[in-house]
Amino acid sequence: MRVEDMIFISVDDHLVEPPNLFEGRLPARFADGAPRVEHTDNGDDVWVFDGQTIPNIGLNAVAGRPKEEYGVNPTAFDEMRAGCFDVHERVKDMSAGGVLACMCFPSFPSFSGRLFLACDDKELALEVVRAYNDWHIDEWAGAYPGRFIPMALPVLWDPELSAAEVRRVAQKGCHSLTFTENPATLGLPSFHDAHWDPLWRALVDEGTILNVHLGSSGQLTVTAPDAPIDVMITLQPINICQAAADLVWSRVFKEFPDLRVALSEGGTGWIPYFLDRLDRTYDMHRAWTGQDFGDRLPSDVFREHILTCFIADPIGLKLRDDIGVDNMCWEQDYPHSDSSWPRAPEEFARVAAQFGVSDDEADKITHANAMRWYRFDPFAHRPRAQCTVGALRADVPGHDTAIRPMDKGRFADVPTMSLGELAENATA
Amino acid sequence: MRVEDMIFISVDDHLVEPPNLFEGRLPARFADGAPRVEHTDNGDDVWVFDGQTIPNIGLNAVAGRPKEEYGVNPTAFDEMRAGCFDVHERVKDMSAGGVLACMCFPSFPSFSGRLFLACDDKELALEVVRAYNDWHIDEWAGAYPGRFIPMALPVLWDPELSAAEVRRVAQKGCHSLTFTENPATLGLPSFHDAHWDPLWRALVDEGTILNVHLGSSGQLTVTAPDAPIDVMITLQPINICQAAADLVWSRVFKEFPDLRVALSEGGTGWIPYFLDRLDRTYDMHRAWTGQDFGDRLPSDVFREHILTCFIADPIGLKLRDDIGVDNMCWEQDYPHSDSSWPRAPEEFARVAAQFGVSDDEADKITHANAMRWYRFDPFAHRPRAQCTVGALRADVPGHDTAIRPMDKGRFADVPTMSLGELAENATA
Repeated sequence: MRVEDMIFISVDDHLVEPPNLFEGRLPARFADGAPRVEHTDNGDDVWVFDGQTIPNIGLNAVAGRPKEEYGVNPTAFDEMRAGCFDVHERVKDMSAGGVLACMCFPSFPSFSGRLFLACDDKELALEVVRAYNDWHIDEWAGAYPGRFIPMALPVLWDPELSAAEVRRVAQKGCHSLTFTENPATLGLPSFHDAHWDPLWRALVDEGTILNVHLGSSGQLTVTAPDAPIDVMITLQPINICQAAADLVWSRVFKEFPDLRVALSEGGTGWIPYFLDRLDRTYDMHRAWTGQDFGDRLPSDVFREHILTCFIADPIGLKLRDDIGVDNMCWEQDYPHSDSSWPRAPEEFARVAAQFGVSDDEADKITHANAMRWYRFDPFAHRPRAQCTVGALRADVPGHDTAIRPMDKGRFADVPTMSLGELAENATA
Repeated sequence: MRVEDMIFISVDDHLVEPPNLFEGRLPARFADGAPRVEHTDNGDDVWVFDGQTIPNIGLNAVAGRPKEEYGVNPTAFDEMRAGCFDVHERVKDMSAGGVLACMCFPSFPSFSGRLFLACDDKELALEVVRAYNDWHIDEWAGAYPGRFIPMALPVLWDPELSAAEVRRVAQKGCHSLTFTENPATLGLPSFHDAHWDPLWRALVDEGTILNVHLGSSGQLTVTAPDAPIDVMITLQPINICQAAADLVWSRVFKEFPDLRVALSEGGTGWIPYFLDRLDRTYDMHRAWTGQDFGDRLPSDVFREHILTCFIADPIGLKLRDDIGVDNMCWEQDYPHSDSSWPRAPEEFARVAAQFGVSDDEADKITHANAMRWYRFDPFAHRPRAQCTVGALRADVPGHDTAIRPMDKGRFADVPTMSLGELAENATA
């Protein structure tokens, strides 16, 4: 298959929230407490909520920038590519990048929305979560039906309220919930606690997927304070194996056999080893640990419940039969620093050709699996023939995708961010 | 190749220290402070040193026991298989298991000897480390030349003293040092600090390998206090990727190009993914992180410096060309719970046949790589023809290798150890 004829849906992209997100969306008595953007004296745009200040960090909005600039300090809106926060520009960037549809994780609330967990005024926090979800579903994803898989934030502090929110947004067509890869690290009951059962039940009832994004536990793997930042970047995806192990061995899938979980940005090449390790652990230890999966193996449980994805992962494609072709999705990670936008389709096609991926397999990985797992049908909105890389790019002739440096201006003398600074910002 | 004709050297086994280890080995003024074994009122044998009590834990001495018993509480010497602590019995167990030679990690001092780091009397601690090393090299490994790759403990609190100890034991033929996978978690300077340079220099000068065993940082991956113990067991090996990332991105290999490190019990199947991830991180981020490996890639650096090993790892054997056949060793893990003793050679041969491993490749993985990396030549002591699985087993006809339950006696009503108890013991 030629890359022009492929269809790409990304199950892991990111949006930067625009300053007007909450305008007119909160009841009057909560309006003053809504998160808002402030422009600081040194030129940054920061979100402010409940006494916390959240800068946008360099690595989170680098689409269109040269790699030399990836580590610069917090950026203002006018220093970012508009596709980060403006849905109309985003859709043009998607088309120019050959991508039909994508699912966008949040930025300032953190991947799991834990910013709102810390807020003492839970009435306000609940209104903010609902307003955020309405904006994401109605205004961001709603502006271009068939171009976005809508995603909701959870009400982390209350599984019943979370369940109600899952049911509420499902009525609006949203079947994807972002969550944390480990609630225990946020000070909440772990995956092993029945505390979360109301949420799991709502997810199953509504056919909604739980997405656990790397880093959503709030804990980055920092081996040492003086470790080069390359160490943390290298280790980020594979660390999600902790969430996978937690879930496979937990009671969750036993009690909720229809629950589905996506390991967002977790990569795939490590999974065959991990599945072997699960099964060997079961073989060697179940006699005394008491684990019992009946006539199945833990690797079967993984494949029944867990969706994986990758940006560019040659070993994952090579080992697709050991992972399960039905369990693999593609992702673009726009506008983060691991993305190959606007040439991501070409990157996929090159590696797929190297490992003899068939057209049918490529279709599953690039879009069909995402459509099935997320109950998302872009072809209801746009004829399939108009959804290919070639057709989408033809939609936006001359759209500027050049990689060019920003006007460094105030950054001229600013060193790239240190590991400590990045970790501090990322976990703020 | 028939399994009877294969030759096996294990680069990761374990010994349980016998009670008389320190007898007559310490200067008189330190003799009273030497670690000693005490038999407790409830029937356990424990090591006592410097106010600390270290039990032997169930999973560490289960060779010959049925899997149902793996989780029982601390065991006394008379409840363990003698091969755990008696070198004469160990050699018989090795022969009956078809294993020519092995390298034995310590038990009560922890894999890295961090028990002695905590001792305030550093004069005493230094004498204890030296006495331990002399015992290991002269009495344990020395009793059967050609059957053990000797291994020394470091002087963790002082890189100059560690360097001196490396040079001292090298004179006795020991070219293997156990260490921690992350000194920073022990409160010491990290791999990124020049603090350790005297030790690295001594290792390079003496051609001695640094071995970082899973769990040697003193931190087990416990996702949550109520996580089933299966989670921790599953995640143990792959966590060593943190040490690999730390070392590859550090200044250590740049400054000491002849230094060699073994990821002990770390498995191999995850490594091809990890190497891809290293190279992609380099490609995407070096422009701003400043990493520079000249005309090489970080994956080249990994293969030049790092030895891997596995117990039973189908994906690792399948991907041996992506790992590097010259970088892979076999291990048995006797007497721990992940071991397949006494049928480990058969397990290897079965998987090797499944993935078409050639005789030459099998020779490298089962013994030739270990001989080369560790400068160990068992054939100088025993004709090669006498070193095969078949020849070794013929040496000990009728040696009892049956898997049988111990006399449960005092354990009749004891539940298997919880995750919390195991973690507490393992990190004591």
